[in-house]
Amino acid sequence: MTESGLGEISGPGRVAEVDEGISLEELALAARNHGMPLEAMRYDVTPLGLHYLLIHYDIPMLDPDAWRLAVGGLVGEPLVLDLAALRAMPRRTVRVTMECAGNGRARLDPRPVSQPWLVEAVGTAEWTGVPLREVLGAAGLGAGAAEVVFTGADHGVERGVEQDYQRSLPVAEAMREEVLLAYEMNGAPLAPQHGYPLRLVVPGWYGMTNVKWLRDITVTDEPFTGFQQAVAYRLRQEAGEEGEPVTRIRPRALLVPPGFPDFMSRTRIVRPGPVRLEGRAWSGEAPVERVEVSVDGGLSWAPAELDGDGGTHPWAWRRFRFDWTAGPGRHELSARAVTADGTVQPEEEPWNRGGFANNAVQRVPVVCVPAGTPVEAPLGSEDL
Amino acid sequence: MTESGLGEISGPGRVAEVDEGISLEELALAARNHGMPLEAMRYDVTPLGLHYLLIHYDIPMLDPDAWRLAVGGLVGEPLVLDLAALRAMPRRTVRVTMECAGNGRARLDPRPVSQPWLVEAVGTAEWTGVPLREVLGAAGLGAGAAEVVFTGADHGVERGVEQDYQRSLPVAEAMREEVLLAYEMNGAPLAPQHGYPLRLVVPGWYGMTNVKWLRDITVTDEPFTGFQQAVAYRLRQEAGEEGEPVTRIRPRALLVPPGFPDFMSRTRIVRPGPVRLEGRAWSGEAPVERVEVSVDGGLSWAPAELDGDGGTHPWAWRRFRFDWTAGPGRHELSARAVTADGTVQPEEEPWNRGGFANNAVQRVPVVCVPAGTPVEAPLGSEDL
Repeated sequence: MTESGLGEISGPGRVAEVDEGISLEELALAARNHGMPLEAMRYDVTPLGLHYLLIHYDIPMLDPDAWRLAVGGLVGEPLVLDLAALRAMPRRTVRVTMECAGNGRARLDPRPVSQPWLVEAVGTAEWTGVPLREVLGAAGLGAGAAEVVFTGADHGVERGVEQDYQRSLPVAEAMREEVLLAYEMNGAPLAPQHGYPLRLVVPGWYGMTNVKWLRDITVTDEPFTGFQQAVAYRLRQEAGEEGEPVTRIRPRALLVPPGFPDFMSRTRIVRPGPVRLEGRAWSGEAPVERVEVSVDGGLSWAPAELDGDGGTHPWAWRRFRFDWTAGPGRHELSARAVTADGTVQPEEEPWNRGGFANNAVQRVPVVCVPAGTPVEAPLGSEDL
Repeated sequence: MTESGLGEISGPGRVAEVDEGISLEELALAARNHGMPLEAMRYDVTPLGLHYLLIHYDIPMLDPDAWRLAVGGLVGEPLVLDLAALRAMPRRTVRVTMECAGNGRARLDPRPVSQPWLVEAVGTAEWTGVPLREVLGAAGLGAGAAEVVFTGADHGVERGVEQDYQRSLPVAEAMREEVLLAYEMNGAPLAPQHGYPLRLVVPGWYGMTNVKWLRDITVTDEPFTGFQQAVAYRLRQEAGEEGEPVTRIRPRALLVPPGFPDFMSRTRIVRPGPVRLEGRAWSGEAPVERVEVSVDGGLSWAPAELDGDGGTHPWAWRRFRFDWTAGPGRHELSARAVTADGTVQPEEEPWNRGGFANNAVQRVPVVCVPAGTPVEAPLGSEDL
């Protein structure tokens, strides 16, 4: 680059070359951000620190005493609210399964170059806060209000564009009763990495919607065209297309990988005999109606036992169980969600240039061996 | 593999080929485990969820009511302790900076294939628990006691060896007053991923020492030769060497990357003028005596202002500050720790086959541009 521009350090989006390994830039994102270890699906609510995390820029360190939320634009009365004012308003807790829109990106072929998620970018939390519509109601929506724009305090550059992180919602989505301005997660003040002191939580939508470190809400009469809305988070087959916006979470089921792992390959080892499989399934579109499991690499599918009816926590994942009798040898396990409108998770990844909204069926390689199986490749000098 | 062995799914340790990108196996580890976003060094004590995390196998989900700690081997009286019994013993809190022994591995050339850390595998916590020597004192060390072996509840396979995670300490290290059996982290019960309900904390030693999900302590009269002691965590130049054991944390200083980042390259952007740099420095060997900063790619070094004298929290990192006047253009920032025995952090990585105990000086590329700098490569179709 020259000495006056950002072009060279902030390049355009790209797709990896054939056989291009994960780059150090992708790895740097993977080292900062993290998925949820899949064994944590054993918990109904993901313990703090295990919920997936994606941070576009840096975590802002905000002073809660100085922090304010501004509410303005096309409203009857602009507001400036501190945390005490928000806590004094009606309070609601919603259990929400949140998933990154880029989950599964690293397995796409060719691979879009960005945060290289495999399949773990998910988590479920109990968010507590004031319903957004209470705040919008207090400010009063003006005539012609079409969208609500949310601005976070995190600041950075992306593909040459310097920005605070911003996303919008149509007014009808913003006024849904379960949309929160959340100041607590799992009963405690938000952790810094989850948006302290305040974040937006929009149940059913992919993670990018849930703006963290929220500092401004602006009501507008026209669609928002900021970077994260019009450039990023679009489904495109070719560069240059306008593309479709990424919105709600597609249905997905994931198994807790059974047995125990090999450290490096993460391949699972189980013993011959009964193995209880379990996992979680969720959808931000039509609700999950059933889950099916395959223990033969997708050749055949059988229904799993599905907990609950989705009534108590309609925005959270549901647990499923399946009893499998493992025989010696290699196996490939999968689960797939089927929603009330008959949608079935696809076996192949739906490719797009950004690597978004992928919900291909998970494949879990498992090796079944008797206890005490001798190691066939004895430890030698190569092992040291 | 054949149907009876683990050889093929659990291979020997290896070093990457020249120009071999990060593999999906390495990425899978990076997606589960995570470093500490370096801006979190602004906190004296790392908030939960930001401390680095490395899990060899799966996180065990342990029932605290059923859980017991067994203390046996070469002792006067074997003990079986529940959590209430441990909490009834003398209690101590120690602030500890912990670092993974593999920190920096992914930048080594050639790259040892394992958890691919860049430089973020560190964190500082307030650990509370019973001093280990209280428990060993209650059991009574037998004559000839040489080592203490710690066994966790996490189970897996590593390079063909099925195992519970185990490490040992020489008795003299185990009896240090600040070595804890910790049941709290930052004032709360341990999170599952940090070893709930009990873990070993050995201030000054690399992370692998601090056995999580502790279930057994056995005193022995000879050196422990388990996998994690005799095979893994050794400093070797060639396969087959016995190697030196990895023990204490080498001195390191890290800067909080200043300004704001580009999303993909993580390159930092700052404005011309005064920039206050800050960071943290630590050592498990001789204490950090001073920190030096370079703003010219290591050509020259100047002393940073170093907080505290290490007296209050001798096992925790110390904050340093440095006032820099940034001029337009590209810069490379670095910091290096100098210890009381005169050791200076090396500029080049000390290579070994496992990629352990690397403490090479961090390099932070920074671009200084005036506010409002136009983007030189305008957004075009390539950006979408």
